Amino acid sequence: MPRYTAPVKDMQFVLHDVLNTTTAGIPGYDELEPEFTAAVLEEAGKICSDLLQPLNSVGDQEGCTLENGIVRTPTGFKAAFDQVKEGGWPGLDMPEQYGGQNMPYLLGTAVGEMFSASNQAFTMYQGLTHGAASAILAHGTEEQKDKYLPKMVSCEWTGTMNLTEPHCGTDLGLMRTKAAPQEDGSYKITGQKIFISAGDHDMADNIIHLVLAKIEGGPAGIKGVSLFIVPKVNVNDDGSLGARNGVSVGSIEEKMGIHGNSTCVMNYDEATGYLLGDEHKGMRAMFTMMNEARLGVGMQGVSQADAAYQNAVDYAKDRLQGRAVTGVENPDGPADPLIVHPDIRRSLMDQKSFTEGGRAFLLWGATMIDAAHRANDKDADGLVSLLTPVIKGFLTDKGYDMTVQAQQIYGGHGYIEEHGMSQYTRDARIAMIYEGANGVQALDLVGRKLAQDGGKHVMAFFEMVKNYIKENSGQDEAFDRDFIEPLKAASKDLQAAGMYFMQNGMKNPNHALAGSNDFMHMFGHVCLGLMWARMGKASLDALAGGASDATFYETKLATGRYYMARQLPATAMHLTRIQSGADTVMALDAANF
Amino acid sequence: MPRYTAPVKDMQFVLHDVLNTTTAGIPGYDELEPEFTAAVLEEAGKICSDLLQPLNSVGDQEGCTLENGIVRTPTGFKAAFDQVKEGGWPGLDMPEQYGGQNMPYLLGTAVGEMFSASNQAFTMYQGLTHGAASAILAHGTEEQKDKYLPKMVSCEWTGTMNLTEPHCGTDLGLMRTKAAPQEDGSYKITGQKIFISAGDHDMADNIIHLVLAKIEGGPAGIKGVSLFIVPKVNVNDDGSLGARNGVSVGSIEEKMGIHGNSTCVMNYDEATGYLLGDEHKGMRAMFTMMNEARLGVGMQGVSQADAAYQNAVDYAKDRLQGRAVTGVENPDGPADPLIVHPDIRRSLMDQKSFTEGGRAFLLWGATMIDAAHRANDKDADGLVSLLTPVIKGFLTDKGYDMTVQAQQIYGGHGYIEEHGMSQYTRDARIAMIYEGANGVQALDLVGRKLAQDGGKHVMAFFEMVKNYIKENSGQDEAFDRDFIEPLKAASKDLQAAGMYFMQNGMKNPNHALAGSNDFMHMFGHVCLGLMWARMGKASLDALAGGASDATFYETKLATGRYYMARQLPATAMHLTRIQSGADTVMALDAANF
Repeated sequence: MPRYTAPVKDMQFVLHDVLNTTTAGIPGYDELEPEFTAAVLEEAGKICSDLLQPLNSVGDQEGCTLENGIVRTPTGFKAAFDQVKEGGWPGLDMPEQYGGQNMPYLLGTAVGEMFSASNQAFTMYQGLTHGAASAILAHGTEEQKDKYLPKMVSCEWTGTMNLTEPHCGTDLGLMRTKAAPQEDGSYKITGQKIFISAGDHDMADNIIHLVLAKIEGGPAGIKGVSLFIVPKVNVNDDGSLGARNGVSVGSIEEKMGIHGNSTCVMNYDEATGYLLGDEHKGMRAMFTMMNEARLGVGMQGVSQADAAYQNAVDYAKDRLQGRAVTGVENPDGPADPLIVHPDIRRSLMDQKSFTEGGRAFLLWGATMIDAAHRANDKDADGLVSLLTPVIKGFLTDKGYDMTVQAQQIYGGHGYIEEHGMSQYTRDARIAMIYEGANGVQALDLVGRKLAQDGGKHVMAFFEMVKNYIKENSGQDEAFDRDFIEPLKAASKDLQAAGMYFMQNGMKNPNHALAGSNDFMHMFGHVCLGLMWARMGKASLDALAGGASDATFYETKLATGRYYMARQLPATAMHLTRIQSGADTVMALDAANF
Repeated sequence: MPRYTAPVKDMQFVLHDVLNTTTAGIPGYDELEPEFTAAVLEEAGKICSDLLQPLNSVGDQEGCTLENGIVRTPTGFKAAFDQVKEGGWPGLDMPEQYGGQNMPYLLGTAVGEMFSASNQAFTMYQGLTHGAASAILAHGTEEQKDKYLPKMVSCEWTGTMNLTEPHCGTDLGLMRTKAAPQEDGSYKITGQKIFISAGDHDMADNIIHLVLAKIEGGPAGIKGVSLFIVPKVNVNDDGSLGARNGVSVGSIEEKMGIHGNSTCVMNYDEATGYLLGDEHKGMRAMFTMMNEARLGVGMQGVSQADAAYQNAVDYAKDRLQGRAVTGVENPDGPADPLIVHPDIRRSLMDQKSFTEGGRAFLLWGATMIDAAHRANDKDADGLVSLLTPVIKGFLTDKGYDMTVQAQQIYGGHGYIEEHGMSQYTRDARIAMIYEGANGVQALDLVGRKLAQDGGKHVMAFFEMVKNYIKENSGQDEAFDRDFIEPLKAASKDLQAAGMYFMQNGMKNPNHALAGSNDFMHMFGHVCLGLMWARMGKASLDALAGGASDATFYETKLATGRYYMARQLPATAMHLTRIQSGADTVMALDAANF
């Protein structure tokens, strides 16, 4: 069975050596002293390794069951959920007013990565609740907040997000679920929603569904969509539970992975719902939390990659097979461990450099969300909005690839379910799809975010990279060669791609959109390149300062050099593809596919 | 449920317009007239679409079961297997002497792609039998051939290959299964083998296991391994079945995919076995058929990609979601079909250009195997040996990626099992692992095949590409620009990589092996680039000759242009990685991963 060890030291390095959290000037960050964050991360790590990780394969094997309208979660999930609630983990970054601990989103992200790495399907129950609670926090009336948030912050009640219908996922303007206004100001919600993660289960007394629906007589299409609070069990004015609402589970989907999470078809049959936010502004309300939600999915890409990588390393060290081509390394054994072989190392370095770079990218993104929310920093908000599709799309595409590589290290033992490596790929696969499929992320990036606010944010990004390069070059020849020069080249490729879009996208938008997936990937590489440069520099500084654990920092530098030499140059390929334009992409009539 | 349509027209194009089969001068190819191959392919296609494809998801959902030592295949498998046997398909390319039809391996490959595309798990039962029969054909005594082959060619009895043991897969020298010589010339085989595809089932009267084992007292390691025929049921001298042999199924593995195939733990307990080939030369005997076996696995990569692609195209045409950015294309519908969106097309073109290019590569490879076997053509044998790891590794890595892309087109509907797209990725995943994991293919290519016969074969490959370019340039400006120039650039990259290996691999073999995976991929791209140039040229010729179906050939040209512009340039990235050498790959101590 796989194991998981929380990367506390690595996270501490990013928080304190790279992001310099306590001096970052973001409200609340002054509390994030190294000793404090270490204590929180150690504690979370223990729960993840000891409690959630062992339940990961149980969830995969048992899945959720629906009998007589009741959904049962896998053995051990409820007890573990109780323990997580008792620890107060779900409310870590929620307001104290509603029972939370008001910690920065940054710390929630670090802890979230661990939870997700140890048991993605399990963690989604609280993840969805967090998302729903955040939407109520942002758009609810004081009454709604008081009524729902204390129970949701504690996860006594969980939450869901209901967007997709059988005939529409991305294009929600086609939605058919109806909301009929009632005299008391409530609505009767009727329709079917599909793919509802954590849609029903036996781990909470109530489930607060957030449901998109169209108010009868409202505008057509996406402009007529509103958001509603639809409790599974009606909540009385005194907060006690009343009668069951008209919400039922049609079925549980059979899926490729995340079996431990109940993905439900939800039927709303004149269910009582309450408008959340403004009439016909449902999309805006639902998408307020989009940066966080998508960062949370990007995090799943990194977390599954890390969990899979840790086990691949173990296997590569244990499994004796063949001999090193440069001479026997394990003379007392019948063969050398896999890890002596260059192509095994190539794969492990791909995984390691992606995971650590991706983690830094996520945590950096979280600081921008904190700056936006806690200090109303418009530039940070603009920049993280630009980067959100990159965080989501690039980190889940690559995260999935890394789980496939980790599985490959096991050979045939990776294909059978016994070792758990198949589960990592099957679970990681969903992150490329939900919360906006990665093609939609690429479209959002190129079709919308690049031009947002007159292109201000992408220009700010390039300016930031340029300044970073300027401020950090010329001090160390090796650092310039190994980190600065590759970053400069990759950033230049990215700018050239943006320039191509500007020059050609005006004539024909397909010239930009045909390159959107490549652009998202090259943007991701540049961001990870920037992260590795920053981590490399921080490591050099630590070594120059006489850090006691020199090996840790030297390993960081070596891993960064690998990324810069072997992964970052992919930007040139993406640029070539982009510059080939849309003609070859769009040449065929649909009938000729 | 997915559908599958056999690509008969596309195969006919490759066989007759590109490979010019009837005039290729390979013994037996003169029979392969277009009308004849069309009839065979149409007939095979019908069985695949109507009989095997509908059983594909049944196999996935039911899997195989083991009860009281008896393995049961999924509902419908046995009846379908009987029908396939009756049609004589298993013996298509086997000698007439043993009941086969003596068709070229080329035709068997085309038919095999269809079988595999419609139902990989099912097709493996006959695929393994074919491999075992081929080994007996090559190494058996006349008595052994007469005893086993007629029943195996017809699939009345099936076959297996037993290599892997719990502690060794790639490194078979560590093998523990023992063979004790008996006075009658037979052996008692004792040991455990794992991951035995088609290891046991209820579709044949007998199963002929080919088992690698060490004869007691023989040389240590791989030099002491011999190959044995171990029937599940002993065969009397008159050909009738005798008592059960000491062979039993320990368990059936739970796997990520190919659930319809029984992957067994096989226990040999003093089972009676008969030496096949020479004592201690088991590896040689087992690997005689390696080029074919690995080409067969490469074929699975292409076949799963094609089946998944066909369904992704259907979905992209049917599913209405969003509007084309260049203007509404389906004004009477609520939205445009997915296929209007550039990134959907990008993905479909990736899939289409890979599948058709990969198919041409496979069929070209099959002609070399025929030339080697039927005309004793040493150059063809050398070239296909060089290309075999590329065919296996590149086509299964990419084939898997394409199934993931096809699944992605379906969004959330691709993640649930209902639509069958998950099965394509789960089934395709195994092909990257078995018959030598792809890292081992890359090692074989760089560590062994490049230098084989003094590097003669790789030089012949480059010479061939050079001659092709020379003979086909300067005639058509557009063809030169779209096909010849990209091929020239990619081939130059590949040569530069080979040069890097030569110059640096001598000093330190890690400099070559750290780039082996990249080299395998760039070699694959160059081969597909060559195939696309040949297909493009054939299409131009057909159009110039006034071909009636101009759209077919124009579509080929457009698909080829896509590959050359968007896929082939990956060679530059692989070269950059290779030229970065082994230092960043090998930098870390194992303890620091």
